[in-house]
Amino acid sequence: MKFSSRKLENLVESLATLPSIGKKSALRLALHLLDFPHKIDGLKLSLDEIKDINRCAHCHNYADQDICDICADESRKKRILCVVESAVDVMAIEETQQFRGLFHVLGGVINPLEGVGPDRLNIDSLVDRVKTNEVEEVIMAISPTIEGDTTIYYLSKRLQASHVKISQIARGVSFGGELEYADSHTLGRSIHARTLYDLTKDN
Amino acid sequence: MKFSSRKLENLVESLATLPSIGKKSALRLALHLLDFPHKIDGLKLSLDEIKDINRCAHCHNYADQDICDICADESRKKRILCVVESAVDVMAIEETQQFRGLFHVLGGVINPLEGVGPDRLNIDSLVDRVKTNEVEEVIMAISPTIEGDTTIYYLSKRLQASHVKISQIARGVSFGGELEYADSHTLGRSIHARTLYDLTKDN
Repeated sequence: MKFSSRKLENLVESLATLPSIGKKSALRLALHLLDFPHKIDGLKLSLDEIKDINRCAHCHNYADQDICDICADESRKKRILCVVESAVDVMAIEETQQFRGLFHVLGGVINPLEGVGPDRLNIDSLVDRVKTNEVEEVIMAISPTIEGDTTIYYLSKRLQASHVKISQIARGVSFGGELEYADSHTLGRSIHARTLYDLTKDN
Repeated sequence: MKFSSRKLENLVESLATLPSIGKKSALRLALHLLDFPHKIDGLKLSLDEIKDINRCAHCHNYADQDICDICADESRKKRILCVVESAVDVMAIEETQQFRGLFHVLGGVINPLEGVGPDRLNIDSLVDRVKTNEVEEVIMAISPTIEGDTTIYYLSKRLQASHVKISQIARGVSFGGELEYADSHTLGRSIHARTLYDLTKDN
């Protein structure tokens, strides 16, 4: 692509470094911004703001104060921690309205191939929190991948001394999914991990 | 979606005002920027730069100087103007390397339903250019839509007094396209506007 303006080209290249934005989309976004210059100011302001975004001192979620709203909420159960990979998982779980405990954001999973060792994750602070706050249960809400499973295994080893109950979110076929389209690994595990059907309960 | 940080929410909302970026994509982009803070600076810089981007005084294309590179290029044919809707069309035509004249960017097409009248487009300057520079041909490279056709008709009326040759880019089935998938309007027009096949020429 040949640009008539180096300034325009720079913006397109900046935008194209973002995930899932190719050169063509970047160009469309840049031209849109040129057509609506007031959006440029809004975007710049928001970019400025997030440069000094905080991490909650307890759970490492993004927060405007030292402590995030969830950790500061007195009505939440402080003895139950849900361990997640990233802030977006906190939002997804909050959306379900099925969890009233606190979170702990790891900042990723252990991935030796990509050079992510346990020291790069918020694991020491998790062990500390569990010890200090007499946590009763740690729920591992981590992606069901090899790296995720490795991380869960490592965390459970590190938490062993605390004698805390460790659980992981249920894995199986998705609600609304059709069995024939479930991958065989998921389907196999969901048969293995079958639960008793109880007419008196909401299964 | 419930955000743990208003700063993060603001950025997501700014990004989500851009075309083809929904809330979910905006969130992914925002979290990506938080993971790679150096990209924030690059993006801010580019946004700052394009705020004072110029329009070429001749053709209204985006330019870093008063006159764009194309208009300043002495090797280009100054007697032939290609009229396009927007800067991105200039880039597309330049990419083909099939045109060595100059451009004129209208800034849109006449669209009464969206309140775009001829006065909102760079039409007066086109008429001036044609008169002043003894232009011999004006090629209308405008989208084959009702609005595009209306604009071509209006422009040709305005240019009538200059006795300039007016042409429009060929319309028909796309190269590599299959006839059965061409819409019937295009197919009908391409039969109507058929050209003689000449064995001695590259058809």
